[in-house]
Amino acid sequence: MSSSVLRPAAGGNRYELLSPKAMPRAAGFLWNRRMMIQVTCRGYAVAQFMQPEPAKYAHAPNLEARTFMQPEQGYYAHHPGRFFYIKDEDTGELFSAPHEPVRAAPERFVFSAGKSDLAWTVEHHGIRVELVMSLPVDDVAELWSLRVTNLSGRARRLSVCPYFPIGYMSWMNQSAEYRPDLQGVVASCVTPYQKVADYFKQKDFKDKTYFLCERAPDAWEAAQEAFEGEGGLHAPSALQADTLAGGDARYETPAAVVQYRVALAAGAAEDYRFLFGPAFDDAEIAAMRARYLGEAAFARTRAEYADYVAQGAGCVTVETPDPELDNFVNHWLPRQVYYHGDVNRLTTDPQTRNYLQDNMGMTFVRPATARAAFLHALSQQEATGAMPDGILLVEGAELKYINQVPHTDHCVWLPVCLKAYLDETADWALLGEVVTAADGSGLTVARRIGRSMDWLLKERDLRGLSFIAQGDWCDPMNMVGYKGKGVSGWLTVAAAYALNLWADMCAHVGDAEGEARYRAGVRELNEAANHYLWDGRWFARGITDDGVVFGVKDDAEGRLWLNPQAWSILSGAASATQRALMLAEIEQQLHTPFGVQMFAPPYSKMRDDVGRVTQKHPGSAENGAVYNHAAAFYIYSLYTSAESERAYGLLRQMIPGPDEADYLQRGQLPIFIPNYYRGAWKEYPRTAGRSSQLFNTGTVSWVYRCVIEGLCGLVGDEDGLRIAPQLPQAWPGMRVVRQFRGATFDVTIRRTGGESVEVRCDGELLAAPRVTGIEAGRRYRLEVGVP
Amino acid sequence: MSSSVLRPAAGGNRYELLSPKAMPRAAGFLWNRRMMIQVTCRGYAVAQFMQPEPAKYAHAPNLEARTFMQPEQGYYAHHPGRFFYIKDEDTGELFSAPHEPVRAAPERFVFSAGKSDLAWTVEHHGIRVELVMSLPVDDVAELWSLRVTNLSGRARRLSVCPYFPIGYMSWMNQSAEYRPDLQGVVASCVTPYQKVADYFKQKDFKDKTYFLCERAPDAWEAAQEAFEGEGGLHAPSALQADTLAGGDARYETPAAVVQYRVALAAGAAEDYRFLFGPAFDDAEIAAMRARYLGEAAFARTRAEYADYVAQGAGCVTVETPDPELDNFVNHWLPRQVYYHGDVNRLTTDPQTRNYLQDNMGMTFVRPATARAAFLHALSQQEATGAMPDGILLVEGAELKYINQVPHTDHCVWLPVCLKAYLDETADWALLGEVVTAADGSGLTVARRIGRSMDWLLKERDLRGLSFIAQGDWCDPMNMVGYKGKGVSGWLTVAAAYALNLWADMCAHVGDAEGEARYRAGVRELNEAANHYLWDGRWFARGITDDGVVFGVKDDAEGRLWLNPQAWSILSGAASATQRALMLAEIEQQLHTPFGVQMFAPPYSKMRDDVGRVTQKHPGSAENGAVYNHAAAFYIYSLYTSAESERAYGLLRQMIPGPDEADYLQRGQLPIFIPNYYRGAWKEYPRTAGRSSQLFNTGTVSWVYRCVIEGLCGLVGDEDGLRIAPQLPQAWPGMRVVRQFRGATFDVTIRRTGGESVEVRCDGELLAAPRVTGIEAGRRYRLEVGVP
Repeated sequence: MSSSVLRPAAGGNRYELLSPKAMPRAAGFLWNRRMMIQVTCRGYAVAQFMQPEPAKYAHAPNLEARTFMQPEQGYYAHHPGRFFYIKDEDTGELFSAPHEPVRAAPERFVFSAGKSDLAWTVEHHGIRVELVMSLPVDDVAELWSLRVTNLSGRARRLSVCPYFPIGYMSWMNQSAEYRPDLQGVVASCVTPYQKVADYFKQKDFKDKTYFLCERAPDAWEAAQEAFEGEGGLHAPSALQADTLAGGDARYETPAAVVQYRVALAAGAAEDYRFLFGPAFDDAEIAAMRARYLGEAAFARTRAEYADYVAQGAGCVTVETPDPELDNFVNHWLPRQVYYHGDVNRLTTDPQTRNYLQDNMGMTFVRPATARAAFLHALSQQEATGAMPDGILLVEGAELKYINQVPHTDHCVWLPVCLKAYLDETADWALLGEVVTAADGSGLTVARRIGRSMDWLLKERDLRGLSFIAQGDWCDPMNMVGYKGKGVSGWLTVAAAYALNLWADMCAHVGDAEGEARYRAGVRELNEAANHYLWDGRWFARGITDDGVVFGVKDDAEGRLWLNPQAWSILSGAASATQRALMLAEIEQQLHTPFGVQMFAPPYSKMRDDVGRVTQKHPGSAENGAVYNHAAAFYIYSLYTSAESERAYGLLRQMIPGPDEADYLQRGQLPIFIPNYYRGAWKEYPRTAGRSSQLFNTGTVSWVYRCVIEGLCGLVGDEDGLRIAPQLPQAWPGMRVVRQFRGATFDVTIRRTGGESVEVRCDGELLAAPRVTGIEAGRRYRLEVGVP
Repeated sequence: MSSSVLRPAAGGNRYELLSPKAMPRAAGFLWNRRMMIQVTCRGYAVAQFMQPEPAKYAHAPNLEARTFMQPEQGYYAHHPGRFFYIKDEDTGELFSAPHEPVRAAPERFVFSAGKSDLAWTVEHHGIRVELVMSLPVDDVAELWSLRVTNLSGRARRLSVCPYFPIGYMSWMNQSAEYRPDLQGVVASCVTPYQKVADYFKQKDFKDKTYFLCERAPDAWEAAQEAFEGEGGLHAPSALQADTLAGGDARYETPAAVVQYRVALAAGAAEDYRFLFGPAFDDAEIAAMRARYLGEAAFARTRAEYADYVAQGAGCVTVETPDPELDNFVNHWLPRQVYYHGDVNRLTTDPQTRNYLQDNMGMTFVRPATARAAFLHALSQQEATGAMPDGILLVEGAELKYINQVPHTDHCVWLPVCLKAYLDETADWALLGEVVTAADGSGLTVARRIGRSMDWLLKERDLRGLSFIAQGDWCDPMNMVGYKGKGVSGWLTVAAAYALNLWADMCAHVGDAEGEARYRAGVRELNEAANHYLWDGRWFARGITDDGVVFGVKDDAEGRLWLNPQAWSILSGAASATQRALMLAEIEQQLHTPFGVQMFAPPYSKMRDDVGRVTQKHPGSAENGAVYNHAAAFYIYSLYTSAESERAYGLLRQMIPGPDEADYLQRGQLPIFIPNYYRGAWKEYPRTAGRSSQLFNTGTVSWVYRCVIEGLCGLVGDEDGLRIAPQLPQAWPGMRVVRQFRGATFDVTIRRTGGESVEVRCDGELLAAPRVTGIEAGRRYRLEVGVP
C-alpha cells in the first residue's frame, strides 16, 4: 500500500484513515441481529433498527421520508451523528471529535475501522481524544467510550461535551429532558399516525431515545436550538457559557448534550462511557443501563460482539503476493458475506434474488443457515411455480418498494445458488425435503424447483425468448415489457444456465426424464438467443414490446450490456469464437480504471421503450455504473472459461487501492465492496469511480465464490474437493487454508510451468487434482503445482 | 404599540421587524394561484407549488417525507432558504442577508413584511443590502431584487454572492450547472418512482429548478459541497478564494451560487435582479426569463400582484381606539380570508369543513366564489346525504392524509356557512339551483341540504346523540367511537344548531313541513344533550364506545372542552342559567394570557378511549392548545349572546401584541392568525403562547364574521342591513366603512348611554336600526348611537 492517508493495522483486522478531509465520506459499519450503523470518519452516522420494519432512534432535523437504503448518502451540518466537543476553559478554544461539527484541523487524526468496533484518535490543542464505538450482539444500543488525555505538559481545565443530536422525532409529540434518576438525557415521542388501525401497530414501538452517562455530568441541555443558539453547531452558544443551562425540549427538536468540567494534570487522562439507543419505557432504559453501562460490561460486550463477528470468518484464508487482497479476502469479504446472510440486510422482505444469493454466500460461512433459507424461500413459492418478488421474513411483513413491481428472474436463482450449496456440502438430501407452501401443498424441494424451471420455460414468447414484464435483474428496465410482449436477452440465457444446472442435478438424482426435458429447454433458449439476439459481436440486451432490439451496435446509448454476455458464457449460448469477440468488445467498451461497467454508453435522456434506467443519473446506480454485482458475474463467467488473468484484474479492481489516487477517487475504505462505483468515466471523469458507500449488494457472495472456486480453485463435488487454481500470471504462487466439510486443507500453490495441475496430498502425488474420502477433523497438506 | 422590535409601516400595509434574533421564526408569506411561500426574517423559506399536488423546487438536504403543512416548522443550517453573502474583498469580512447563514450582528436590520412583497434592509460593515421578494399572479417564480449600497464613505471592493440552496432533489437523478445561454444555474432531476404507472403521472413534472441572473455574474458554483468545503455555511470555503470555481453537480446536491465582483465608490449602489423557480425544460426557463427578468417586468409584475392582493380587500374598514386591531382588520384579516378562499390552501382535496368555512369567509370578499364553491361541494354529496371527508378540486385528485379517516361533522357546515352567505347576499335563488352529483342525480341545493340534515338526524344512537365514528371536528379524537357506538357532545349540539338554521331557511322559502321536521329534530338533539351530557356546570365532550362520559368534572385531564359549550349556546341547548355557569368555568379553566384553550387540562398520557389527541404534545396542536378555530366559534357564540366584552377580549388576544413581551413570546408578526398558539400554560409556561406559524386555519372566516356581524354589528337580512354594534365598554365609539350589496355604508358609532341602538341614515333617524331598500352604488352615511 502506497497511501499516506490509509493503512491496514492489527494484521488486517483494522483499517486506519489518517485524514478527515482526504475521504470525507469514508465510513465503517457495524451491525448486530437487531440493528445496523454506518459512521463516517467525521462523525456522521446512519443507524437503523428493526421494530420490525427499519426505524431510527436519531433522526434528521426534518420529517424524513421512509425509504430503502440509499447510495451516496448526503451529509450536512445537522445530519445525525455522534460528536464530542472539547473546550479549553482557560482559552475558550474549541474543537470536536471525530471532526464535525467544528472541523478544526487536528494535529493528529486516526479513524480506525475494525471488524467489531469503530475507533478514533484525535489530537488537538495538546489534548488527545480516543473514541471507541461498539455494539452488543442482541440489543439495540451503541456503546461509546471516550478517553481524554492531556498531552500538553501543563495543567488544563476542560469541558468535555458529548453532543448526540436526536433530531426531528415526530410532529405528534416530541420532547426531551435530563433524567437524574437515569443519569442521562431521555427524549420521547409518539410515532405519528392518522388512521386508528396504525395505533395498534405502533403502540409498542420504542419511542424513546436515551443517552446515558456512566458518571453524572456537571450540566446538560436537551433542546437542539438552545444548545446552538446564534453560534451554530461549529461554535454553539451554549458552550460559550460556563455551564450548559439544563434546558428541556417541549415539542422542540431534542438533542442530548452533557458537560463534564474537568481539571487534568499534565499527562493525566479521564475515561467516560455512554450508552445511546431506543427504548420503550423508563424500565427498559434502566435495564439497558444496568446491563451495559460500565467498564466490565463494556469489556464483556465487546468480547461477545467480537465472538459474534468471528463466527463469520468464512472458509478460506489466503496468502498471496497481494497483501491488500489477503486482508480483504481473509477479513472483510467473509464479514460482508456474513452480514448479508445472518441478518438479511436488516429488511423484512428481501428481494427473492437477493435472499437466495446472500444465502449462497452464507454457504461458505454457515451452510445450515443457507439450507434453512432455501427451504424458507421455497415455502413462499406460488402455485404457478413462480417465486414471489420478495421473501417475507417476519409475521406481518409486506412487500415494499421495488418488490411491488413484477420481475421475472427470481426462479433463475434457485438452481444457480443451490449449485454452490451442493458443491460445498454435498447435502443432496435437501432435494428430498418436503416444503409446505401457503396454499397447503406439500412438495419436495426437487419438485418445487422443477416447477420453477417449468415456469421459466412457460414465460416465453413465440420466439422462445423470456418475457421481462416490468423488470428482470436490472430493476429499472421497467418499460421494455410492461405491455406483456417485451423479452429479456439476459433472462433468456440466464434461464438456459439455470435449466442446465438443474438438468445436471436431475441427472445426479437419476431423473432422466427431467434431465432430458430441461436440456431440451436449454437448447431452445440458447438457440433462440443466438437467432434473435446475436448482434455480430455480442448479444443484445432484449427486445421491446414494440419489437425493437436494444443493446446493439446501432444504439448510441446502452449499446453493450455486460449481463447477457456473462450469462451466455455460463449457459453455453456463446461459442468460443463468440466469447472471444464479446470479451474484446467488453474490454474496449466497458472497462474503466475502476472496474467494468454494466453497460455503456450511459443513457443521457429518457428512452421510452427501455424505461427508468434511462432516467437515472449517468454513472450512478444502474445507468452506466461499475455495477459490481454484474461485474462479479462476469468475473465468475471468466473463471469458468479459464480467463484467469482478466478475471483477476477485474476482481482486484473491486477493492479500492492500492495507490492513493485510487483511494481518494473512490473515497472509501477497503473494508467492503459497494454496490457500485460511479461509471460514465468518459462522460464525467470527475466523479467516475466514486463509491456508492452502500454495502448491501449481492456482489460479495459471488466475489467470495470467485475467490474460492476460481482464484483458489478449490471446489467441492459429491465425493471430494477438486483443485484447479487460476493464479494471475505474475504470481509465483500462493497459500490457502480452506475449511471444507469439517476438514482443513493447507494448500501451497506454486507455479511450476508444467503441463497440468499436479497435487501432492501430505506428500503423496495424486492421480488427479482431486481429494476424496475426506475425513472431518483432519488437516490435509496439499502442495499444488500449476502450469 | 409599545414594541422596540416591531412596528407597523405604510399605513398598516407592512409590518417591520427590527431584529433577527428577537423572533427568529417570524415570517411573512405570499401566495399566488399556483404557489405559496413563507420566508422567515432570517432567510429560511418554505415554498410549494401545485403540479397538481404540492411540490417543491427547493428541497431539504435529505429525502423529505411528503406530508401536509406542519405547524412550528423547524429550521436548521441547511434548511431551504434564500441567502445573499457580501464579502469585503480587501478585509475578507463576510456577512449574509437576511441573516443566515453567517449570523453576523447587523448594525441595522429591518424585515418588512408587506401584503404583496417581503423586503429586508440590512446594514453591516458600512454596506446596505436591500432585498425585495415578490411573486407573479399566475406563474411559479420568485422575483428577487437586490440593491447593495456603499455607506462607508470610502471606496469598497465587494463580492456579492446570492446563494440559493436547491437541496436533495432526487435519488434517481440530480445535477446542476451554470448555463451561459440562460445566464443562470439550472438544476435538473427526475422525480423518483418505481412503479411504471407513476412514470406517466410524473413525466410532465417541472423537474428543473432555475436561478437566473439579469446580469451575467463573474463566477458561479452549482454544487453544494464544493461551495461549503471545510468552511461550512457560515464561512464557505469557496468564498475564501477570489472567485467561485465554476463547478457543477453530478448526482451531487445542487445549489445555485453566483458571484459578482464589484467596486463601489463611496455612496454608490448596484442593483441586481434574480428569478428563481421550477420549469419543465429549457424553453420554459427561457420564456420565464423573457417574461419576468428585467426592471420593467419586475415593476409590472409587482403592480399586477398588488392588484391581485387588492382584490381581497374585504368588505369593512374600521377605525377604532385600537390601531393594531384596525391594521389587522383592514389589511391582514381579509388578506388571509382571501388566501383561503381564492386558492383553497393550495390543496387538491380540502377537508369539506374547511372548504365550506373558507368559502363562508369568501362571502365577505368575493361572494360569487363562495356560491360556486357551495355548488361544487354539493356535487360531491353522497347518495346517503352524507358529505365526503374532502372535496376534490382537480381531475385525478385523491383524498389524502386525514381525509382518509371517517368524520361525521361535514354536513353540519352546509347551513352554518350558507347562513352567512344568504345574510350577506340575500341570494336565495341559490337554494333552487340544481346540482348533479357523480351518481347522475340532479337535485336542488335545498333538497341536497335537506338530505344532509336528514343524514345528521339518522346518524344518532338510541339516546338521540350523534355518532362520532373516528372523529368529528376534533380530528384526532379517533378512538371515542371507532367501534360504532361512541357519540359526540359537540356534534349533537352542532347538528341542532345546523338544523335550526336550516329550519329558518325552510320557513323562509315556505317549506312548513320541512321547518316542522327540523325544528323537532332540534328539540330532540338539545334535549338529548341536556339529558345525557349536562355535567352540572358544562356540557360533556362525548360518550365513548364503552359508555364512558368524558369532558366532565371528574376527569383530571381533558375536563372542560370549549366546543360543546359554544355550540350549545348557538343551538339553544343551553339556558341562560347554564350559559352563565359555563362562561364562568371557561374563564376559570380555559382562559390564558394568549387566548382560550380548546380544552384543559391537556392530556399527559394516552387515554385509550379518547385516542390520538391524548398522544399529542401537551400545549401543541389540539392537546390543550389555544386552538384559534375553536376560540373563534366561542367568540361568535358570545357575540350572539351579547357578551360583547368577553368576546372582544378574546378576539383581541388572537392578534399578537400590543406589548413586546407578548410579541416575543408568540414569536410571530401580527399579519395572520395561526391555527394555534401553544397552550398548556400552567404545565409548560416557557413555551405557552408560541405561535404555530401556520396560517392555514378556518379561524379567519369566523373572526372576520365576528368583526363584521358582532363588533361592527352590521348584518344583512333579506331586505336590508341591520345595525347592532357591540363595542367594548372602554370605547367611546368607532368608525366603519362597510361595503354591502353594492352600496357603501359610512358608519360612525358613538356611545350615547341611551337605552337602545339609534341610527340616523344620512341625517334621518330610523324607526328601527335597519336600513332597507338599499341602492347599489349609493353611499350611505350612518350615525349610530349605542347604549
